[in-house]
Amino acid sequence: MILVDGHPASHIDVRDRGLAYGDGVFRTLRVEAGAPLWWADHYAKLAADAAALKIDCPAETALREEIGRVAAGESCIVKLILTRGAGARGYAPPPEAVVRRIVLASPLPPHARPDAPSAVRARWCSLRLARQPRLAGIKHLNRLEQVLARAEWDDPDIFEGLLCDDTGAVIGGVMSNLFVARDGELHTPDLGACGVAGVARQRLLRGARAAGLDVHVGRLARDAILRADEVMLCNSVIGVRRVAALDGRSWSPAGWTPRLNRLLYELD
Amino acid sequence: MILVDGHPASHIDVRDRGLAYGDGVFRTLRVEAGAPLWWADHYAKLAADAAALKIDCPAETALREEIGRVAAGESCIVKLILTRGAGARGYAPPPEAVVRRIVLASPLPPHARPDAPSAVRARWCSLRLARQPRLAGIKHLNRLEQVLARAEWDDPDIFEGLLCDDTGAVIGGVMSNLFVARDGELHTPDLGACGVAGVARQRLLRGARAAGLDVHVGRLARDAILRADEVMLCNSVIGVRRVAALDGRSWSPAGWTPRLNRLLYELD
Repeated sequence: MILVDGHPASHIDVRDRGLAYGDGVFRTLRVEAGAPLWWADHYAKLAADAAALKIDCPAETALREEIGRVAAGESCIVKLILTRGAGARGYAPPPEAVVRRIVLASPLPPHARPDAPSAVRARWCSLRLARQPRLAGIKHLNRLEQVLARAEWDDPDIFEGLLCDDTGAVIGGVMSNLFVARDGELHTPDLGACGVAGVARQRLLRGARAAGLDVHVGRLARDAILRADEVMLCNSVIGVRRVAALDGRSWSPAGWTPRLNRLLYELD
Repeated sequence: MILVDGHPASHIDVRDRGLAYGDGVFRTLRVEAGAPLWWADHYAKLAADAAALKIDCPAETALREEIGRVAAGESCIVKLILTRGAGARGYAPPPEAVVRRIVLASPLPPHARPDAPSAVRARWCSLRLARQPRLAGIKHLNRLEQVLARAEWDDPDIFEGLLCDDTGAVIGGVMSNLFVARDGELHTPDLGACGVAGVARQRLLRGARAAGLDVHVGRLARDAILRADEVMLCNSVIGVRRVAALDGRSWSPAGWTPRLNRLLYELD
């Protein structure tokens, strides 16, 4: 089921600025038996992303209710899109535009099912992310870099591609954030210039700090990934997954992935 | 009138990747009495942009016919959007996706009417364009930078904003390309790292070279703009317009704008 502005629909106005310019933001969340996981975090992030683009965010209760309707008690993935709405021609945001909301359920993909392997294979992507501080961290609808990066491989055994920016700093996966553990400490890339700052990453930062772990947010070179004791990917659909192999390099479990998954799921 | 895949429609599938990721390209063209101006150039550019994203471009004759239908003999603006089509969740381009085409007419905006002033005011934008060589030059649907830049002013007397990249190189206007004349020669920014390489720019480069003018494509600093004899903006809707004022700096006509307009419109 799909809801557009609260009504069952499968189509949107062709003049929507989400289509014309990617002028909007989105969330992908996991729903368990009709209840969205980490909803408070997702709503706060959606509202912050919308505010960064000066798009009015609908009320939390309205969105929560619509997620419940499309999920209909099932376990599934819900995608929530907000756009600036329909507009006249031209880049200038029309003052009369009314935010459009799209809430869309889809089945759990194989990699999100409870029996999916906890360790995955990854590769380096050749595409370099551009640095745009005005859009960094925001989960907006301009995602051609991710489309191009994801098109670099079609081997189904490769779960994720890792991306660097044009200075060589590692930023994360195409669809996930990255954590590495080394010498008892955690590191995750700074996303001040590019990348998407996901809710799972944010919860892990909060949970790890609350648990007294040393967590560093900063610049990570490719070499720092290769020297790590454990490399992990996270997002709201998969939780935390261990990278068992990255091109030619492979790792044995060092115990971090189950520990971070506990932090992620047990956090309020 | 709007055509979606050749049929009158005002809506598109909410699962279209053009909405989800900005996964598509577009053209904005001027139509005079039902006939699209510079159609051969527009189609060639559309096909090249689609190819750069590995999107199949529909046949030229089909698109040309649909432009004729939406224009219905009038003078208007036609926007043509190609998207990768509807897809499952996830960034990977689905092999089964079928290109979607949207052809949409709108009235000539005031600045495109024959009596619009030939000189305009411009300003510098504070947003800096990110450099992404993989997407540079392409008129794709990821246009949040232009939306943010255009939102920097609402003074209706300001026609256009000029943008630099994050190294300080001037790239062009939010919705137009830039030419400057100095000491009898023409200069336009290199668009190898960011910006949209429009059809009017391409025609001007061709026409000016055919006319024996010296034209340089390269790095332009803000200072080079301020020292120019004449500063010009161009696109397919407005042709060439002279910049009469740019923030505090103003210019008198030096004769270049009518000359370039002749080259632009008289070229085959």
